[in-house]
Amino acid sequence: MEIKKEKDLELEKARHSLAHVLAKALVELYPNTKLTIGPAIEDGFYYDIDLDQSITPDEFKTIEKKMQEIINRGEEFRREVVSKEKALKLFADNQYKTEIINELPDGEEVSIYYTGDNFFDLCRGPHIDSTKRVQNYGFKIHSVNGAYWRGDEKNKMLQRVYCYAFKTKKELADHIAMLQEAKKRDHNKLGRELELFTTVDYIGQGLPILLPRGAKVIQIMQRFVEDEEAKRGWQLTKTPFMAKSDLYKISGHWDHYKDGMFVLGNEKTDEEVFALRPMTCPFQYQAYLNKPRSYKDLPLRYDETSTLFRNEASGEMHGLIRVRQFTISEGHLMCRPDQLEQEFKNCLELAIFMLKTLGLYEDASYRFSQWDENDKEKYIGTKEQWDEAQATMKKILDHLKIPYVVGIGEAAFYGPKLDIQIKNVFGKEDTLITIQIDQMLAEKFGMEYTDKDGSKKTPYIIHRTSIGCYERTLAYLIEKYAGAFPLWLAPEQVRVLSLTERNNDYAEKIKKQLFDLGFRAEVDTRNEKIGYKIREALSMKVPYLIIVGDEEESANTISIRGRGNENKTGLNLQDFIERLKNEENSKKI
Amino acid sequence: MEIKKEKDLELEKARHSLAHVLAKALVELYPNTKLTIGPAIEDGFYYDIDLDQSITPDEFKTIEKKMQEIINRGEEFRREVVSKEKALKLFADNQYKTEIINELPDGEEVSIYYTGDNFFDLCRGPHIDSTKRVQNYGFKIHSVNGAYWRGDEKNKMLQRVYCYAFKTKKELADHIAMLQEAKKRDHNKLGRELELFTTVDYIGQGLPILLPRGAKVIQIMQRFVEDEEAKRGWQLTKTPFMAKSDLYKISGHWDHYKDGMFVLGNEKTDEEVFALRPMTCPFQYQAYLNKPRSYKDLPLRYDETSTLFRNEASGEMHGLIRVRQFTISEGHLMCRPDQLEQEFKNCLELAIFMLKTLGLYEDASYRFSQWDENDKEKYIGTKEQWDEAQATMKKILDHLKIPYVVGIGEAAFYGPKLDIQIKNVFGKEDTLITIQIDQMLAEKFGMEYTDKDGSKKTPYIIHRTSIGCYERTLAYLIEKYAGAFPLWLAPEQVRVLSLTERNNDYAEKIKKQLFDLGFRAEVDTRNEKIGYKIREALSMKVPYLIIVGDEEESANTISIRGRGNENKTGLNLQDFIERLKNEENSKKI
Repeated sequence: MEIKKEKDLELEKARHSLAHVLAKALVELYPNTKLTIGPAIEDGFYYDIDLDQSITPDEFKTIEKKMQEIINRGEEFRREVVSKEKALKLFADNQYKTEIINELPDGEEVSIYYTGDNFFDLCRGPHIDSTKRVQNYGFKIHSVNGAYWRGDEKNKMLQRVYCYAFKTKKELADHIAMLQEAKKRDHNKLGRELELFTTVDYIGQGLPILLPRGAKVIQIMQRFVEDEEAKRGWQLTKTPFMAKSDLYKISGHWDHYKDGMFVLGNEKTDEEVFALRPMTCPFQYQAYLNKPRSYKDLPLRYDETSTLFRNEASGEMHGLIRVRQFTISEGHLMCRPDQLEQEFKNCLELAIFMLKTLGLYEDASYRFSQWDENDKEKYIGTKEQWDEAQATMKKILDHLKIPYVVGIGEAAFYGPKLDIQIKNVFGKEDTLITIQIDQMLAEKFGMEYTDKDGSKKTPYIIHRTSIGCYERTLAYLIEKYAGAFPLWLAPEQVRVLSLTERNNDYAEKIKKQLFDLGFRAEVDTRNEKIGYKIREALSMKVPYLIIVGDEEESANTISIRGRGNENKTGLNLQDFIERLKNEENSKKI
Repeated sequence: MEIKKEKDLELEKARHSLAHVLAKALVELYPNTKLTIGPAIEDGFYYDIDLDQSITPDEFKTIEKKMQEIINRGEEFRREVVSKEKALKLFADNQYKTEIINELPDGEEVSIYYTGDNFFDLCRGPHIDSTKRVQNYGFKIHSVNGAYWRGDEKNKMLQRVYCYAFKTKKELADHIAMLQEAKKRDHNKLGRELELFTTVDYIGQGLPILLPRGAKVIQIMQRFVEDEEAKRGWQLTKTPFMAKSDLYKISGHWDHYKDGMFVLGNEKTDEEVFALRPMTCPFQYQAYLNKPRSYKDLPLRYDETSTLFRNEASGEMHGLIRVRQFTISEGHLMCRPDQLEQEFKNCLELAIFMLKTLGLYEDASYRFSQWDENDKEKYIGTKEQWDEAQATMKKILDHLKIPYVVGIGEAAFYGPKLDIQIKNVFGKEDTLITIQIDQMLAEKFGMEYTDKDGSKKTPYIIHRTSIGCYERTLAYLIEKYAGAFPLWLAPEQVRVLSLTERNNDYAEKIKKQLFDLGFRAEVDTRNEKIGYKIREALSMKVPYLIIVGDEEESANTISIRGRGNENKTGLNLQDFIERLKNEENSKKI
């Protein structure tokens, strides 16, 4: 079952028409405005203009008012087709439009769109028939950024006016509310406030420093993944993070992935050139290649908590999501053809189990990533090999009834992938987990097994991740839970607060008891007001606060403050410990 | 208490004299021999000669006989002092000796040593008075290797004749027996046979691949260390494996350690130059620098399972001991002056606890590594700072009654160290664990805390490892236990062998029961003779074999074969599981 997301063409047309309305409003308000382009985008539209004066947020309201005025006039959108020559005359005072028109083949006709009688713009369309259609739309200018003409920093910097636009005012309000909520959850902000990670200029972008709280969450996840995989028959390897260029020349990375790698040394001047690994595959294959293999040895499943390096451009770095170094639960499984479907299914089940345990499954969707046969440079192998590999994978996906979209040109350079995509709080989609089928790399490394009949065969390899990159997963978890991790993942599970200094020893004793049982417990015995201590603990999203004063101490009880405004007094510590144990073991989300 | 190992000067003199005896024997047997140099070494001596024909092992006996002949003659060693000019004439036909003599200042006198009347050699001495003194010595030529004149590959390749030499024939025999035993334990051989690790040419030297069995041992150790350190108040961080050159310029690595680092990019052509980290210090400091610190926050203890990279020359690589990438239990502790000694002691106790648990403590000795004030280039800081740092450390070491030797020039570039040295099976000593005191790097990074009186202070930093580099520790463990790891570290703890195919299901059932309880259990149900299956399991040093045949199956019992020829039949599986649990939890060595 293939589900492709239908584009809402009506909405897109309306948004693009609203961009013309914005353009008209700007020209009316700022007659020197030179228009360039104004497309519809995911949550509205923008228009890039060349204008000497800077538009400031104070002016947004005035522009919106002018737009509403134009809409209220019920102006018609009217298409007119003119010759290239005529178009050049019409836009003679606008070098941007002139540039666009000049790029068209000679003799081609050019369409312009009128909005009302006194405003027209160069445009392919289509548009709505009248501004009446967007009478009830909700729109709002939210920012003006600098943007180079055609994205080229050699060109002039223009002003890009961004505007949200939705079919109703209610939808607009919901969108703005969602963004405000998302902003609060933004891992790149919240993750720093919660002391999970930081970055440092002199270390570099895309190289986050996991502080003790962040490192603890990742340690818990890694152990959980390694143990779960061991139970499912995976054997851990630990392979080096770099290799001589010789390895990458065999694997094809040198020809197909070199720009994405960090290279150490210079081929022209150095005897040995190394590169940091962008993938684990050819390293982990060495475990398979360590001795001859028989059909009886298969499947062989190797996993690794593997650190990888990708030489991404500085501008693309973002928090824990786009980084230059990351660690991933990577695995490679070698099997016979008759084992392929079952093993693929097992890998998928493992990934789903992980996503469900972390509470991320509901945000996931599937993409069947295929090669782009018009971009053969990017891939190794022949069309026949790709057709075969993709057909094999399609058969398995269809048989397993995986609802996927197809992503052309999204395959790895050596084979097709099933990608599990996750949307972040801002609606941006990224790949978290991937499962791939490959025979091409196996061949390149001479991997084989002796079959029943004594012949040598190339195994199928499933490349898979089971939880994705830990840094990125941590980012999703921060946003999903707004920093309030489930107990089993919380870096600090319990904080014991003393009401007065008289109760410090009692607080310390309780903390020690919890700590000795393996709970991540801290104590706050500072001479501060209890309200202050509580607020601080809550701001760090500690799941449970234990508060002890004279009353608790004399009765040998505790008071707790849990999430969701849970307040209980007179509790027995042993009972509470049982509750903690159960909640932790259940991995409740 | 300072204990410096006394050199046995008498033995050294005798060995060097025996080198002259070898030289004389070689000249008598191969008159074209050109002598160069022949020093005493740890287990004997060698002599480098220039000779057209290759000396083969077949000839060793003849040479030894000739040496014994010279010794039996009771020849005297006689020193003669000649002018530089005369020396040049005496050695006119030997370009090597000529080169050495020419390097002496003009007018200097040169000593030559006669052995008997008809042989002399250029030599500073001292020597024994007569070959009679070594009459009862045991010596044995054991190898001839190629060696460039003066170790420079641009020079001619000479033949280096190696010879063991000890005071008695018994000591020689013991030494040879020890080496044979050591060879069997050599981790670089045994570690591969036991499928713990491998290396691959196209990946590179010093970049070992940890196969599932080796990775398992390291995983167990890492978790054990991380957990033990957490119990002792250390907080885990995870920091990036590389940084921009900017960081290393602050830390001083760029000036004092650049040759040892892998650099990515070129300062002349690239906007950003990165380097892989050779140490964790400046990365982990960022956790401290993440927010302002007060005297009340100290001590702060950060640990990390940290991967480091050192750009060592290819020729220096050796198995798991000398590698280019390794992982270490690194930690940095920031404290006030009044906390320093107690925290230093805690770090030392942690290291000793680790060594004892692993069974390596008896092979350890201490070295107090100081700077070399004649080699200021190598270090940051002033003489005053070094004097103060070393005095502080000495006071602590003496107070704690640590029996150490002093290593001049062995300090880190930023401070003195206490190194815990371990000898491998061949007697070669390496540093496994190190504890350092530092204020200089703290200053460079502007680390400070607000003291009680409100003033800003620089904390002391203790840099420490608690188990050393995991790869190297694994190497020591392989050699220590000849591959037969204690149960808690064994990558495979139990193997269940079926006596006949009839018993395969029963064997599988037992294996599953053990596996589900978390034991590392495997099963061998191959249709092979039981003797063959047992030999194979023993060769992989599996601590316990469970053997099940019809008898066991019908009685619902097991037979086991444990280490030290333990053979038991009719055992109850539950009882055996209890035994396994106890042995594992006790970490018995």
